[in-house]
Amino acid sequence: MKRREFLNTVTLATGAILSTGCTQKNDDKKSININKNRKVRLKLATSWPAHFPIMGTAVDTFVEQVKIASGGSLEIKIYPKNTLVPALAVFDTTSTGQIDAFHSGPYYWKGKNSAFSLFSGIPFGLTAEEINSWMKFGGGYELWRELYAKYNLYPLMGGNTNLQMGGWFKKPINSLSDLEGLKMRIPGLGGEVFAKMGVNPILLPAGEIYTALDRGVIDATEWVGPALDLKMGFDKIAPYYYKGWHEPGSILELTFNKHKWNSLSKEHQTILTLGADAMNANMTYEFHAKNMEAFAKIDRSKVTLKEFPKDVQARAKEELENVIKEESIKNPDFKRVIDSMQPFLEKSKIWTKVGLNSYLNIRDL
Amino acid sequence: MKRREFLNTVTLATGAILSTGCTQKNDDKKSININKNRKVRLKLATSWPAHFPIMGTAVDTFVEQVKIASGGSLEIKIYPKNTLVPALAVFDTTSTGQIDAFHSGPYYWKGKNSAFSLFSGIPFGLTAEEINSWMKFGGGYELWRELYAKYNLYPLMGGNTNLQMGGWFKKPINSLSDLEGLKMRIPGLGGEVFAKMGVNPILLPAGEIYTALDRGVIDATEWVGPALDLKMGFDKIAPYYYKGWHEPGSILELTFNKHKWNSLSKEHQTILTLGADAMNANMTYEFHAKNMEAFAKIDRSKVTLKEFPKDVQARAKEELENVIKEESIKNPDFKRVIDSMQPFLEKSKIWTKVGLNSYLNIRDL
Repeated sequence: MKRREFLNTVTLATGAILSTGCTQKNDDKKSININKNRKVRLKLATSWPAHFPIMGTAVDTFVEQVKIASGGSLEIKIYPKNTLVPALAVFDTTSTGQIDAFHSGPYYWKGKNSAFSLFSGIPFGLTAEEINSWMKFGGGYELWRELYAKYNLYPLMGGNTNLQMGGWFKKPINSLSDLEGLKMRIPGLGGEVFAKMGVNPILLPAGEIYTALDRGVIDATEWVGPALDLKMGFDKIAPYYYKGWHEPGSILELTFNKHKWNSLSKEHQTILTLGADAMNANMTYEFHAKNMEAFAKIDRSKVTLKEFPKDVQARAKEELENVIKEESIKNPDFKRVIDSMQPFLEKSKIWTKVGLNSYLNIRDL
Repeated sequence: MKRREFLNTVTLATGAILSTGCTQKNDDKKSININKNRKVRLKLATSWPAHFPIMGTAVDTFVEQVKIASGGSLEIKIYPKNTLVPALAVFDTTSTGQIDAFHSGPYYWKGKNSAFSLFSGIPFGLTAEEINSWMKFGGGYELWRELYAKYNLYPLMGGNTNLQMGGWFKKPINSLSDLEGLKMRIPGLGGEVFAKMGVNPILLPAGEIYTALDRGVIDATEWVGPALDLKMGFDKIAPYYYKGWHEPGSILELTFNKHKWNSLSKEHQTILTLGADAMNANMTYEFHAKNMEAFAKIDRSKVTLKEFPKDVQARAKEELENVIKEESIKNPDFKRVIDSMQPFLEKSKIWTKVGLNSYLNIRDL
């Protein structure tokens, strides 16, 4: 069924490419003429509710700017979470061509290929700035596009949650043993690492986390950072807020159906690429500014800021290595991506220690 | 003379605005029609040599993408340093409308208004990510645009050198007294701070620094970071490389003649804005990736990596405060900008200590 749908899409899309093949020619005049006559409409589904703070409003801005930049010739209609397709069906429905594009996070697709989650980053891994550098100047984008092409998809970076916090805990974690049997809402590689340390990682839809935490169904939850965490009200019910290392710079994606992408004119492709670059950067800055503002508002008489104890950090690093080793044996794609990302990270660490980290220590200590 | 030139420009530009006023209307169809018929050509002068690594090549890419995104209707011709106007005449010639735009750095214009240099950042100040956040979400852009408007200019951020190193010294600096009488090539606020610590700050054109350092005309020089520093060959003649705090995230600017900017259609303005956002972010990532690569190649048997001694750091922070106080009394514009930037920096420090800095310490220690 899926395969047939996919084949149908290929046939249709190939036809579309042939019929508009001339837009790919390097001829400015022709491109202008085609744009004049042809209005393109794209359907974009997101994994967020309509106008969701930062992550959703960034997409609103992107769509508006693309429309203006294209002189109205490229119109994107946003379908927020569950309005056209379910939040986590955006990958498949874009792959088959039922919709044209989606805005979501690569970590959601590790069930399809564990390598995909790496494009969101890894625990103790690249920061937002570093992962952007790896993507653009370290070979990341080439690998991502190659692996997504097998699903008939063309990905662009479309945002970054910036450094995430470690989460909210009802009781303090004083040593490794406090993690044993702990029920925590935590997805992705971070969840796998915590699982190896005795935690029971639980996945819950956003709307159910607060109640589950409040009623003791879970003992802890991570979410994003101060700006979005405080909106969820976690500070009211879980007073220990931990510094983060499990999601240092999670990429969000703006991914297109590849045949649809190829059918677009060079000018539309470039407008979308510039728009995605702008959204990607601006969302990172917005998270910084809003996290900083929200953090300043935390009632420190009620919330205790904590760092995971040294034995937890050390063990987490070990377990991450184990997860990476196991997955690299199982999945050659995972191995290829991590073999590109890890040497970049190692070099980046050396430079960052002398550069950014040294600077922050000099400035702030 | 200058005033007359300016008035002439205003008259001309106002005419241009009137004749194309309809492009400002919120009517997609009309905009498309105008774009069809009207090809816009802009002259952009830079303060860098043609295709200068990272800073110049980023402009090349920007111009190419703008051309494609506009379907060939917006063509920018780049005039590298000294080919149409002298490197540091780009501000005045864009102000008067002799050229349409320039790519340079706000720190060059402190002679016109000491507040302008603040838009490049300050010693011990905002990092690249933080200054982008302040510009976009902390009020920085509004202030910059207001102050530049007095010069008939409309600025966009157009890149960032990312964290800069402290520079190359022929002899080690072991205490404050070693700075006394030292001849160092260092511009901007960093230079003012060093001057207050006894250094004799010297300005030299790029092409003369190596020889001056080699022959002992100067004792030290800062430049940018490993990627560009090694190309200059400083590691061959000044073996002490210092960690940086004087330029933590220097913004480069893409600034337009304001009347010319206002005469552009909404779609061209938006394409330029998106293109500048992309250039701004991508240059930051490129500096990170290339600094990291270059740093790994430094011959550590010949270059000693150093941190300025604690007494120098402490005194530099004090002297920076003095420079800021003095300048704030002299120049109300300076005071307004610093009064916006400093509270942002203070909040950012608190969050960064818990967020990014804490993360880097956990990851890398």
